[in-house]
Amino acid sequence: MQDLQQQLDFILELDRLKGVYRQAMVKSDKNRNENSAEHSWHIAMMAQTLHVYAEAPIDLARVTIMLLIHDIVEIDAGDTFAFAAQVDLDAQEAKELDAANRIFGLLPTQQFEEMRNLWLEFEAAQTNDAKFAKAMDRVLPLLQNMKNAGGSWAKHKVCKSKVIDRNKILADISPKLWTYVTEQIELAVDNGWLLNE
Amino acid sequence: MQDLQQQLDFILELDRLKGVYRQAMVKSDKNRNENSAEHSWHIAMMAQTLHVYAEAPIDLARVTIMLLIHDIVEIDAGDTFAFAAQVDLDAQEAKELDAANRIFGLLPTQQFEEMRNLWLEFEAAQTNDAKFAKAMDRVLPLLQNMKNAGGSWAKHKVCKSKVIDRNKILADISPKLWTYVTEQIELAVDNGWLLNE
Repeated sequence: MQDLQQQLDFILELDRLKGVYRQAMVKSDKNRNENSAEHSWHIAMMAQTLHVYAEAPIDLARVTIMLLIHDIVEIDAGDTFAFAAQVDLDAQEAKELDAANRIFGLLPTQQFEEMRNLWLEFEAAQTNDAKFAKAMDRVLPLLQNMKNAGGSWAKHKVCKSKVIDRNKILADISPKLWTYVTEQIELAVDNGWLLNE
Repeated sequence: MQDLQQQLDFILELDRLKGVYRQAMVKSDKNRNENSAEHSWHIAMMAQTLHVYAEAPIDLARVTIMLLIHDIVEIDAGDTFAFAAQVDLDAQEAKELDAANRIFGLLPTQQFEEMRNLWLEFEAAQTNDAKFAKAMDRVLPLLQNMKNAGGSWAKHKVCKSKVIDRNKILADISPKLWTYVTEQIELAVDNGWLLNE
């Protein structure tokens, strides 16, 4: 019964991710900020749909779990805007590792280790599964911004070069999606939603 | 390129599930109503954690996708409170089937059929995978209500017998979780959160 209680404590703790808000806006719900729980659902669904464009073989079930858990650390560490001007990356990384240890650590040992390892694999972005998962996490905000007159890019005056840098992980893992993304970035510049530098 | 455009249209349409609100409350975010997108994420995470209590063999990857897609029809059909007094179930079912055809129908044919079939399997609740997924969808509101002084049960004066009816799908699929749930229901009655009838 001890394991079950630990698992239920973990499940209830997850509720807090619904209160972590991101820069992305939910256009279909009064253009409010998006929270990290619904974002995690959305990119997991995106992977179900776009996995057919993965160039290397990927394990969709693993990718899906990675996407479901990738933001859980934000319960303690908060969300960092991808294009924030000044972020101490080392400090943020340390905070997220502490968060992973505390939150996944609510679980019985074996599940704790499995989830923490999967999260670490996602963060390292070295395996095909992690690279594809990262790519999903990066492409969805682009789709949202393109649908929303530039969205968080326009609001924070983001440069084209930074968006290219952030999305180029796609080039290897999914050339077809990369082609689409580069076209969209050009279109965003033409529309004045991204700075041309 | 036609397939990709269809898939992207589907992904963007999913954004609307973030604006479908349920009776459950998010205690950790100012006790606002929960939306169906973040709920779907939460029960998918619940399945990752509690699948170890499934009595019959289940395919966790299929269960996870079922849970991710199970509420998408609500974009058109709306959320129905599990304990609503008067619902025309046939009419609701017809509305949800139309919604499944329209929304999954945004996808290329093969993905449309895969997702619609998985959704139909979930709704029918006959296979082990679907039964376990249904159980997750039913147990999470119980955990939330127990953490929130009766939550939607107390607000809508729900009877114990209805909650037992709704959760008894657990008895076969996970006796251990069923034991836990029946104990919690008794506790809810003792606390005055459920009517004892």
